[in-house]
Amino acid sequence: MTQFRTEKDTMGTVQVPADAYWGAQTQRSIENFPIAQDINKMPKEIIRAFAYLKKAAALTNRDAGVLDAEKAKLIGQVCDEILDGKLTDSFPLVVWQTGSGTQSNMNVNEVVAYRGHVLHGGQLSDEKKFLAPNDDVNKSQSSNDTFPTAMHIAAYKILVETTIPGITKLRDALQAKSTEFMDVVKIGRTHFMDATPLTLGQEFSGYVAQLTHGLKAINNTLAHLSELALGGTAVGTGINTPPGYSENVAQHIAELTGLPFVTAENKFEALAAHDAIVEAHGALKTVAVSLMKIANDVRMLSSGPRAGIGEISIPDNEPGSSIMPGKVNPTQCEALTMVAAQVMGNDVAITVGGSMGHFELNVFKPLMIYNFLHSARLIGDACVSFTDRCAVGITPIRANIQKHVDSSLMLVTALNPHIGYYKAAEIAQTAHKNGSTLKETALQLGYLTAEQFDEWLKPEDMVGEIKK
Amino acid sequence: MTQFRTEKDTMGTVQVPADAYWGAQTQRSIENFPIAQDINKMPKEIIRAFAYLKKAAALTNRDAGVLDAEKAKLIGQVCDEILDGKLTDSFPLVVWQTGSGTQSNMNVNEVVAYRGHVLHGGQLSDEKKFLAPNDDVNKSQSSNDTFPTAMHIAAYKILVETTIPGITKLRDALQAKSTEFMDVVKIGRTHFMDATPLTLGQEFSGYVAQLTHGLKAINNTLAHLSELALGGTAVGTGINTPPGYSENVAQHIAELTGLPFVTAENKFEALAAHDAIVEAHGALKTVAVSLMKIANDVRMLSSGPRAGIGEISIPDNEPGSSIMPGKVNPTQCEALTMVAAQVMGNDVAITVGGSMGHFELNVFKPLMIYNFLHSARLIGDACVSFTDRCAVGITPIRANIQKHVDSSLMLVTALNPHIGYYKAAEIAQTAHKNGSTLKETALQLGYLTAEQFDEWLKPEDMVGEIKK
Amino acid sequence: MTQFRTEKDTMGTVQVPADAYWGAQTQRSIENFPIAQDINKMPKEIIRAFAYLKKAAALTNRDAGVLDAEKAKLIGQVCDEILDGKLTDSFPLVVWQTGSGTQSNMNVNEVVAYRGHVLHGGQLSDEKKFLAPNDDVNKSQSSNDTFPTAMHIAAYKILVETTIPGITKLRDALQAKSTEFMDVVKIGRTHFMDATPLTLGQEFSGYVAQLTHGLKAINNTLAHLSELALGGTAVGTGINTPPGYSENVAQHIAELTGLPFVTAENKFEALAAHDAIVEAHGALKTVAVSLMKIANDVRMLSSGPRAGIGEISIPDNEPGSSIMPGKVNPTQCEALTMVAAQVMGNDVAITVGGSMGHFELNVFKPLMIYNFLHSARLIGDACVSFTDRCAVGITPIRANIQKHVDSSLMLVTALNPHIGYYKAAEIAQTAHKNGSTLKETALQLGYLTAEQFDEWLKPEDMVGEIKK
Amino acid sequence: MTQFRTEKDTMGTVQVPADAYWGAQTQRSIENFPIAQDINKMPKEIIRAFAYLKKAAALTNRDAGVLDAEKAKLIGQVCDEILDGKLTDSFPLVVWQTGSGTQSNMNVNEVVAYRGHVLHGGQLSDEKKFLAPNDDVNKSQSSNDTFPTAMHIAAYKILVETTIPGITKLRDALQAKSTEFMDVVKIGRTHFMDATPLTLGQEFSGYVAQLTHGLKAINNTLAHLSELALGGTAVGTGINTPPGYSENVAQHIAELTGLPFVTAENKFEALAAHDAIVEAHGALKTVAVSLMKIANDVRMLSSGPRAGIGEISIPDNEPGSSIMPGKVNPTQCEALTMVAAQVMGNDVAITVGGSMGHFELNVFKPLMIYNFLHSARLIGDACVSFTDRCAVGITPIRANIQKHVDSSLMLVTALNPHIGYYKAAEIAQTAHKNGSTLKETALQLGYLTAEQFDEWLKPEDMVGEIKK
Repeated sequence: MTQFRTEKDTMGTVQVPADAYWGAQTQRSIENFPIAQDINKMPKEIIRAFAYLKKAAALTNRDAGVLDAEKAKLIGQVCDEILDGKLTDSFPLVVWQTGSGTQSNMNVNEVVAYRGHVLHGGQLSDEKKFLAPNDDVNKSQSSNDTFPTAMHIAAYKILVETTIPGITKLRDALQAKSTEFMDVVKIGRTHFMDATPLTLGQEFSGYVAQLTHGLKAINNTLAHLSELALGGTAVGTGINTPPGYSENVAQHIAELTGLPFVTAENKFEALAAHDAIVEAHGALKTVAVSLMKIANDVRMLSSGPRAGIGEISIPDNEPGSSIMPGKVNPTQCEALTMVAAQVMGNDVAITVGGSMGHFELNVFKPLMIYNFLHSARLIGDACVSFTDRCAVGITPIRANIQKHVDSSLMLVTALNPHIGYYKAAEIAQTAHKNGSTLKETALQLGYLTAEQFDEWLKPEDMVGEIKK
Repeated sequence: MTQFRTEKDTMGTVQVPADAYWGAQTQRSIENFPIAQDINKMPKEIIRAFAYLKKAAALTNRDAGVLDAEKAKLIGQVCDEILDGKLTDSFPLVVWQTGSGTQSNMNVNEVVAYRGHVLHGGQLSDEKKFLAPNDDVNKSQSSNDTFPTAMHIAAYKILVETTIPGITKLRDALQAKSTEFMDVVKIGRTHFMDATPLTLGQEFSGYVAQLTHGLKAINNTLAHLSELALGGTAVGTGINTPPGYSENVAQHIAELTGLPFVTAENKFEALAAHDAIVEAHGALKTVAVSLMKIANDVRMLSSGPRAGIGEISIPDNEPGSSIMPGKVNPTQCEALTMVAAQVMGNDVAITVGGSMGHFELNVFKPLMIYNFLHSARLIGDACVSFTDRCAVGITPIRANIQKHVDSSLMLVTALNPHIGYYKAAEIAQTAHKNGSTLKETALQLGYLTAEQFDEWLKPEDMVGEIKK
Repeated sequence: MTQFRTEKDTMGTVQVPADAYWGAQTQRSIENFPIAQDINKMPKEIIRAFAYLKKAAALTNRDAGVLDAEKAKLIGQVCDEILDGKLTDSFPLVVWQTGSGTQSNMNVNEVVAYRGHVLHGGQLSDEKKFLAPNDDVNKSQSSNDTFPTAMHIAAYKILVETTIPGITKLRDALQAKSTEFMDVVKIGRTHFMDATPLTLGQEFSGYVAQLTHGLKAINNTLAHLSELALGGTAVGTGINTPPGYSENVAQHIAELTGLPFVTAENKFEALAAHDAIVEAHGALKTVAVSLMKIANDVRMLSSGPRAGIGEISIPDNEPGSSIMPGKVNPTQCEALTMVAAQVMGNDVAITVGGSMGHFELNVFKPLMIYNFLHSARLIGDACVSFTDRCAVGITPIRANIQKHVDSSLMLVTALNPHIGYYKAAEIAQTAHKNGSTLKETALQLGYLTAEQFDEWLKPEDMVGEIKK
Repeated sequence: MTQFRTEKDTMGTVQVPADAYWGAQTQRSIENFPIAQDINKMPKEIIRAFAYLKKAAALTNRDAGVLDAEKAKLIGQVCDEILDGKLTDSFPLVVWQTGSGTQSNMNVNEVVAYRGHVLHGGQLSDEKKFLAPNDDVNKSQSSNDTFPTAMHIAAYKILVETTIPGITKLRDALQAKSTEFMDVVKIGRTHFMDATPLTLGQEFSGYVAQLTHGLKAINNTLAHLSELALGGTAVGTGINTPPGYSENVAQHIAELTGLPFVTAENKFEALAAHDAIVEAHGALKTVAVSLMKIANDVRMLSSGPRAGIGEISIPDNEPGSSIMPGKVNPTQCEALTMVAAQVMGNDVAITVGGSMGHFELNVFKPLMIYNFLHSARLIGDACVSFTDRCAVGITPIRANIQKHVDSSLMLVTALNPHIGYYKAAEIAQTAHKNGSTLKETALQLGYLTAEQFDEWLKPEDMVGEIKK
């Protein structure tokens, strides 16, 4: 049977599990928000970001002379424990809480204070603790500036640690395939219809260019994300902070994380709006659009094996059907396209939340960062999975590729400069109607000689400059 | 050179083009909202809806003894002119105005009053007019109840006159094709990969079922749309309306339009929220999802002609390429899928607008009805265009269909009940690896006899019950 | 150290944790899809739905004479265990897998087969098991018809068990408040500006009407959700099913769940499209729009306590600020509005997924049901939380309400029928300019007597008919 | 009665209005796409962009020796006419056409050719024309590279000519207001609840920062938009172009437009994907989110006049109500928020369209650019309108501002460093319960002296550093 101890806050006393590091306000939040509690915990990336910022704030407060050095050290110790992956059970709150994330800030304040008290030799059941959640751990801070700071730390970190590396890995794998396939002449397709030829490597180079541009788009948004709200406190004015606090705390966070964080030039914007999140997720959504395109192409190019396009083969990773024996499916493409669709949906949730900040505070913060981290994680993970289990194993099916090139009517385009668009069209239309080849038809119509045909209409001459 | 006359409202005087039927408030709105004026006029369907309701209100006011019979008659006359397609230049306002649509209500009030004054023998330059925009034409009304009423009238009408008939036409055309193709056995495709066979008619029956369900979904939303806000006036309480007004005016509107409109049970909801529009557009979006699926299938099934799937042929409507002679593209599919994407976007605009009503009034009304009418019109028009120029001309390409069935490895599924999933899988995998046929491989592996193979594996027996 | 045993499928052997009930295909999926594995497990509602359908399929197969009675009984036993909340660790797969959900179907097939084998007295390490995942547990089924069946079972169940009761609870609580507040005359607000009065009860009746309509909208979508794909197997034709299977298995599912499930009239639609999910989520999104409106109103009406509107008070549930002492915030409103924004985003994910089914199968199934269940759960939970911790505790702050009514200039609207819109406007504008009262100004302008003013302008007479 | 002449293309003859400059393919498109023809013409910005590119292509072709100088000159002349605003009736096609925009390319080709023929002294009825639409005007081009080039030209131009200037104008106006109001101390609001004070100028500085960041976000996307597809022709390989064509034609376009266009590094991406449009619209959506926030704040701050917040006054532009005399509403805020909602919707349409490019060509081009230009125009126009008719006229209502500051309980926050969070909370809660002032309560509770109170709790000291 669970034992309880009594904790209190400004509204009174609360029963808390005896061995929980959290206090009254965390417990109230558990009880007040029974909303999807088993599936929507506040993301762990936010808790870790809070650990960085609480430690940085303690150091800054100590340096400013407003926090006792021993207290600052203890706070830092607990934060290090969190960053080491400990205390994970101490953060039970969900996304669907106060829109400022106040309760998660208090959860961290309480856990740092009470765990620090224990590290200091105290007991959880002590009424008086060595560290106070509000007056010590939260000193010179407000939920209103800590939570958005945690949002930016978490968002920036996941982008550079998971999302960008994942996309880069896929981009590089596709670049290698592009180079490998640069001489494989194949039929082009526009409107799903046969078109003039290109090489398989050229086709893949388009995917590479998409992802390269997508990476640039993400990188363009990092500057705004690097701005930290910390120091704005309650409404952006920085009430109850010591001089120089904003700059110093940002500097500490930059050092602790190894990332180029700076204090936000305008704290009012940093609390009341989260356009940096909206903007950065817009870049993630752009990448999702690219991934949808690429994955769709890969699964359609590998379709078949006998009644599809069948120009590439992709790895067989698992039996594809519970009823159709021997079936293999493009499952990595499917995971990736589902991820892309999710990111598109998340974008709208973020847009709606971002647009509804009012006065000095946007109170859709947990929603926004939950969706952002979800998308950033999904893209990063799915790109890696797709690279390892699909992209690197793509090989051309040369027989099918050749057959498609040989039979295509759109090679006739090469004749335009010689006989004009109209006669070329007549050749293609007649060949289509009769089921005949272009050459047969061209000669039959008398528009050119066999020698001219062979000279003018070479698929390998129709693919332009090959860049390797 | 444009001549002007002086008009006034409660804020003062305004110069209005001398021959314009509108007055001061319309003119102010033209000048105050120079936002996309050439492309986003208030939809004509809304103006027409206002004509119905202004006439209905005049009749109701007359019957209630609060409006002079001659005035009521004049009002009705001008409304009839509008409904006859006249006075179209008299409604110059744009969507991006007051969120209550007040200025379009006043535009109608002014035009009805001043045109009525002219019909009554007066002149536009008369300072005193026979009909007053607010006290006569707008009697017992507010923008706050007239505009949402016009929204419901316009939305209901376009659904029953354009959208539902368009979808029905396409559904019926696809039903006819389904019946026509019911015996054409073809290969199925799941995950873009070859699967067990079905008939082309069965495949099309799925499209028919989608649209039949979509029509049901739209019809389910009509009841909410049939509720009219009129009678709620300023905030829903019905201030300044005579007894029985709400019911009587709804009855008049029902008679004038021939549609089953009723007064809204709760006027507060009818002014402050437009969930009926959100709900109904949700059904339109569902249909857009269906149309995207159907159009994608049609263009992929018709892809080629030589390097695609090529199982159906669709009409050639225009030269498909400015550079590739003889190319034909699935252009009707493209228009339809672009329409579907637009409807998905419009859905979000409506959702955002619908969610941001505050207190007694939602002030995203013009935005919401603009997007709704856009979607309803696009779906209706595009379904008709797609039916006439694509669906009715679809024919199977039997040679390709047969070739795909004959070569498919997934026919092996029919052997499961006889030899089990594992052995069946071995046959398919071996055949795939060796490029051999199922029969050759099955015999070679010794899992069944040639007679058994021929008896158990018949594509035409694998398509289940055929419903015609 | 984890012990392993060797399992095999049609692609070869796989090492599986020795005590895991799953087999080779589940293990492959764990390894093949390392995408957000800690946060996006396949929803438990889907696993439970599979338990219903596997048991129903076993019973149907037994009755049809194609499955041994003992095997059927064992299958049913394991399914009952799952429904009793056991074996929860046996379903480790994530949402981001094959788009048909094949691997979750196989996960269930394997767990049912191997757990059944153990119940039958066997051991997990036995090479030959009493039940075979494909040939027994999956008999007469395909992932392609089981997964969409599980989707509909899970969606229907959560709507009737969580979502609809949650919304109904909130609707009923608001209805009680509406009745309670029906005589509290207050100022109306349109465009955020003072308008004519209504009662607080009338204002709340609008919220009630929104939710009542929302419930109707959800109910309208249940019929489509009640259609089950089961019996369509691989592509909709029902290959490898015994006669009468579709109808019988739907009947069994209806009995087991107590819900009115029927076999889908068209199985091709049921596999290739999930418009029922799109349609039903459209209704959920409509409710989200309503909830956003209601929660926004509540928080704005309760704003203050001294510099806001302050017309209602809501319960104080927790300290609102980590820096501002004594602050209390509308946190339940914030959770609810964040939920609403999430549902709007989920709607787009579902729309995109729903629109991209191709040929015989939509392969965005896990994405679609994940988002659907998320929304359904969030709305249900958040409505209950908001009801219990906010709505039931709402009380009017009569002093502020009275003060706002008394000072409002828009009461002048009641004079329109007596002195006309223009003179009434002059009174209001003059009073606004001078900071005077309406009565003072009206008398000063000489448009009516004090007696007339008192008779004509009574806020309590301006709120229309009161329905209790 | 309309007279017709006969025109032909590769599919046969077509009747065209005798005086129309267009030819057979345009006419076919009019007849083939009767979809919202009265409201969704291809945007004029696209037609103008085509004029730039056709002229540039002619010059490049001439320089490359593949086009006769006289023909090139004629082509340029007609393009100049289009850029001068002539020939507007010659482009009757709608957005909902071929997804490659082929028919609009051909429309331009035909009009340039036939108008050029007339300028050259010919007649529209001549069977043989001096310029050929495909072989001359479209030389070295394909719809597949011209339409995306026109998209980028039109998108880039509208951003720098309309959108960015509009946002900048609003930003500058808000900056001026921020400076003007920098000393006006007012109460802050978080969660809609009273918070610690800031100045009105600080509040506005947040809006300025949002827009400054938004402008950066837009500017970050211009580089991708500056890449032109032209030279890729049919599938990206550049078939049928002379050497150096891509670079030269981009150079010509840059000169003609005065904008820094360059040839796209990867033409395959430039045809098959439109991520540049998706990315740039993501930035527009970010700005829409900012505008929604700003406009909401402005209308809530100006709410009242007597029962709202009433801290600022905004210009009265028109009578606000057709029934409530003297009412004035924040109509510019409403137009702006409706615009923001539209942009959010357009973003989803663009996302969906952008994600569904297949193989060598995205065929949602007209949809994408239609929505992009719509958003860019709306934001630009609405910002200007909002600036001119609302922002510049904002003035503080000092009496209300002072009243709110004086009564606020959250000033207590300034006591935290002196008496701690808990005692400060007790003061605020007690004052709230008793309806008393902070000072009265603080003294009564005995936590500090009157002198300390007056020294520690000064609103003007709580607003931090003032940046002017």
